[in-house]
Amino acid sequence: MEDTIFGKIIRHEIPSHIIYEDSDTLAFLDIKPISAGHTLVLPKKASRNLFDINEESAAALMRTIRIVTKAVKAVTNADGINVSINNESAAGQIIFHTHAHIIPRFKEDGLKNWNRDFSYKDGEAIDIAEKIRRNLL
Amino acid sequence: MEDTIFGKIIRHEIPSHIIYEDSDTLAFLDIKPISAGHTLVLPKKASRNLFDINEESAAALMRTIRIVTKAVKAVTNADGINVSINNESAAGQIIFHTHAHIIPRFKEDGLKNWNRDFSYKDGEAIDIAEKIRRNLL
Repeated sequence: MEDTIFGKIIRHEIPSHIIYEDSDTLAFLDIKPISAGHTLVLPKKASRNLFDINEESAAALMRTIRIVTKAVKAVTNADGINVSINNESAAGQIIFHTHAHIIPRFKEDGLKNWNRDFSYKDGEAIDIAEKIRRNLL
Repeated sequence: MEDTIFGKIIRHEIPSHIIYEDSDTLAFLDIKPISAGHTLVLPKKASRNLFDINEESAAALMRTIRIVTKAVKAVTNADGINVSINNESAAGQIIFHTHAHIIPRFKEDGLKNWNRDFSYKDGEAIDIAEKIRRNLL
């Protein structure tokens, strides 16, 4: 694993607005927020993303996500929260140290759009489900 | 908790393309996929979303997210995966039983856009970080 800016933040070598810290995880405000209170949660142990994270780090990440999500909602009075983990560039990951975005949302804030024009051909869903089942590790 | 369509899927009362099942979680293909292999992972124990889920269900959810995300990537040859938990309508939640979306992504697929025109005023980030810290439960 190469070091990242998140490694420097974890070691307190560069400043951040820290929300929460324990032995396994850190949460701090995103420096390029989508909305006020946009927070990042990350496991301290370096992993690139969910494709190589170990089970213990993933469990610690979720423990802190749950705690921080509720606090962010309470403080921002958000109507909702997106929790998003982007894995690899194609999914929007920029810093290659596993992290979750906690993004406060408000009714009709117009922040997010998914283009939904995909549908399966006949039999394709059955086929892909079977293939995924066979690939579980 | 009211029952939802996911309750019926968990009880196998209505069909779904099941990817993975254990005593605590279920994963199956989303019936309105954003891309081929778009999978939902959910804890069997009913909770509305991350604002009221208990720690055990959240841990089980993450265990299965990690397993399924890798299998979905392997099968779809996706360049990346978004893992997204939408909490409340304002964040895009439609079925009020906690669930995570596992969404295969490809380079320049144009699927997702966040509007990023927010920035903090002077002192605002310090203030909100302090408030969130004081609201951690």
